[in-house]
Amino acid sequence: MADAIRHDKTARQLRLLSDALDSGRLGPVRRLVNTLSPAEIGNLLESLPPGKREVVWGLVDPEDDGEVLVHVGDDVRESLIADMDPDELVAAVEDLDIDDLADLVEDLPDQVIEEVLKSMDRDNRERLEQVLSFPEESAGRLMNPDVVTVRADTTVDVVLRFLRLRGELPDHTDHLYVVSRRHQYLGRVALSALVTHEPATPINELIDDEQAAIPVTTPESTVANQFSDHDWLSAPVVDENNILLGRITIDDVVDIIRERAEHQALSAAGLGEDEDLFSPVPRAVRRRVIWLAVNLVTAFLASAVVGQFAQTLERVVALAILMPIVAGMGGNAGTQVLALMIRGLALGQVGASNLRALVWKEVRVASVNGLILGSVVGGVAWAWFHDWKLGLVIGIALMSNFLAAALVGVLAPITLRRLNLDPALAGGVVLTTATDVIGFVSFLGLGTLILLG
Amino acid sequence: MADAIRHDKTARQLRLLSDALDSGRLGPVRRLVNTLSPAEIGNLLESLPPGKREVVWGLVDPEDDGEVLVHVGDDVRESLIADMDPDELVAAVEDLDIDDLADLVEDLPDQVIEEVLKSMDRDNRERLEQVLSFPEESAGRLMNPDVVTVRADTTVDVVLRFLRLRGELPDHTDHLYVVSRRHQYLGRVALSALVTHEPATPINELIDDEQAAIPVTTPESTVANQFSDHDWLSAPVVDENNILLGRITIDDVVDIIRERAEHQALSAAGLGEDEDLFSPVPRAVRRRVIWLAVNLVTAFLASAVVGQFAQTLERVVALAILMPIVAGMGGNAGTQVLALMIRGLALGQVGASNLRALVWKEVRVASVNGLILGSVVGGVAWAWFHDWKLGLVIGIALMSNFLAAALVGVLAPITLRRLNLDPALAGGVVLTTATDVIGFVSFLGLGTLILLG
Repeated sequence: MADAIRHDKTARQLRLLSDALDSGRLGPVRRLVNTLSPAEIGNLLESLPPGKREVVWGLVDPEDDGEVLVHVGDDVRESLIADMDPDELVAAVEDLDIDDLADLVEDLPDQVIEEVLKSMDRDNRERLEQVLSFPEESAGRLMNPDVVTVRADTTVDVVLRFLRLRGELPDHTDHLYVVSRRHQYLGRVALSALVTHEPATPINELIDDEQAAIPVTTPESTVANQFSDHDWLSAPVVDENNILLGRITIDDVVDIIRERAEHQALSAAGLGEDEDLFSPVPRAVRRRVIWLAVNLVTAFLASAVVGQFAQTLERVVALAILMPIVAGMGGNAGTQVLALMIRGLALGQVGASNLRALVWKEVRVASVNGLILGSVVGGVAWAWFHDWKLGLVIGIALMSNFLAAALVGVLAPITLRRLNLDPALAGGVVLTTATDVIGFVSFLGLGTLILLG
Repeated sequence: MADAIRHDKTARQLRLLSDALDSGRLGPVRRLVNTLSPAEIGNLLESLPPGKREVVWGLVDPEDDGEVLVHVGDDVRESLIADMDPDELVAAVEDLDIDDLADLVEDLPDQVIEEVLKSMDRDNRERLEQVLSFPEESAGRLMNPDVVTVRADTTVDVVLRFLRLRGELPDHTDHLYVVSRRHQYLGRVALSALVTHEPATPINELIDDEQAAIPVTTPESTVANQFSDHDWLSAPVVDENNILLGRITIDDVVDIIRERAEHQALSAAGLGEDEDLFSPVPRAVRRRVIWLAVNLVTAFLASAVVGQFAQTLERVVALAILMPIVAGMGGNAGTQVLALMIRGLALGQVGASNLRALVWKEVRVASVNGLILGSVVGGVAWAWFHDWKLGLVIGIALMSNFLAAALVGVLAPITLRRLNLDPALAGGVVLTTATDVIGFVSFLGLGTLILLG
């Protein structure tokens, strides 16, 4: 378990911190906290229950406050912002990069936004407004307008002199962008090319124009896939006229990849990726009860199906005892198919062209598994209730439910996606409803026919 | 649905390709495939059913073969390697970077490994052997030994002249590493510092020694967390004597983050992250049947519990009809807690120091949810079966099961982690076993006491 290492390290820090907090010795806590990077402080704050969280937040170096706010989930961010007065907030966020500030802006009180805007120079204010004018979760929101551009009709030597005059480059600058007189994107020049070529080399010999720029409205998930498909460290962002607007860097893309993975893992349980480990009880209840209520409706649906067989159940109690097995195992088998499909959809590997091949493969797997486990379950049921007919009924019902689970496991996520619903969120509910209903109908229906027929 | 964009794009490519393959026109397929990056080709191959997969693999430019093999999951890689003869394989992999070659080596036939080793110069062979000497999933396996080093007692000008003589830098070089005479790691100099400082600047003024080097045995999950906590693009790797061994770059870290996320999503269904969408049926059966068999044992356990109440069920069939609701809703509520806990464990946010606070929060959430949904379910049951006592029984049973689900949801993943078991893999089975058993016992037990008492 490689994860255990980080777990152990952070757990040790947590324990130290917790002990120090309990004893009221805040000096060591402050020292410990301020050896951490903003992302690590964010992680730590997310792990603290209310009360302790506020104490530690108060000990963070005010210089790091803004970066820490950028690195925590929405819910936790809200709780931290609620603890700050407007002046502190203005001081915390006014020096952030434009892309980070844009990310925070909707969580800030209006008064703070106004102050921050006032404190910015006109250029930066216009840049922020431009970034905010693009849709959420688009390349425009991810980009930082702070880019270094050069012209093609110059030489390495001239560029180096320009850079020495300019001084420090924006974080994570691995390329300079070459633009036309009208600021259209023409290509990029790697810093590594600048330092490995003779001063007299013309820049237009070093231009790499293979990497197309990212249109500013591109969804962030597409941006993330492009970065990881092409091993980019940064990429230029352009408007519809190919005018260079900014630059996206891999560190922001890594955050998106993590968020998407968390989204997928948590939405299967009806939760959002910004859910706070210690969210206030009323909020947690409100969020969870909706998903539970949806599941409750489907549970009643399954019970109503069982209710149709009340007379059968009264006469053969063994059916009542065994029926959860058929429904549950169908759900388990379907969950395996569903998990593969959801990954395939996220990677763009599943579509109309391979649907038939997928169904055919899963039907064959389900048939063999159904045969194996149906025989086992049938045999055990026969031995348990001394009734071979009961064994036959449960064996056939299990096989049927495995086949149904394979079909629903493949087709439900694809159908949900076509309906613009999130398969990771809704797939499980649809699947278990189907395997419950089909499991109960096939088992109790066959039981009625064969045992009471 | 942002994912839908990629889905649509790849689905379109897939359909075009599929049509072209069906019609036997391989020219357009070859052209289409060879506009893609190796990672995209890998993604495409993973989405193709057997038959088509081999045809397309045969059309890939042999120059890309090695990189494509690096970018596919283990299962698919095995199927692709099986399609190549030894000479093709040697040609495909001999020009790979050392870290990529190390990643592939265990999947290659011995004969091919021998040929590749023979084709390498002594330096590279020693480097490969060194990389392979480190444990799997450690920093040593991720690093590339190809690094550019400089000495501290020199100037920008001298370094630039050295780099111009050296020529092209390794991919993703954003820093040069400063080493001592004995090759000990002293710090790093950013390319961006080289290009923004005057030629006469001494290198030791530009050294950033704040980023500690990564010990070579560090687990890759820790490496991934460090990269994302500190927004690194690359990091030096050292042995126990601080001798510089190589360099890890963010592109490999992104792959690890993706793999870990896939692992977490798929292991909840008892599958590995290398599972091929189109794995051969016998292999798929073998893998899945084990996890299903474990679930079957727990299902029989739950049925055995139900069996204890056979007499009660014979007399009150409504209990048989409603019992899946209590067990199922407990499982749903527990799944929400479990999902939060598994994320918390992966992020190192959950440990002994906040366990009590977590349990307390989840118990309160479960109490309120239990009260709300218990009342709803009780009311519906009362109305359905015209029996207020039955409503009372199911209401109390549901509340009890919600509380049990909260406790198991928090404690099971922590306990599994302590036992060095993967909570993402085993947590769901433990949870549903508990909520099934506790749900049935509380509902049928209370039913026996109150309805038949």
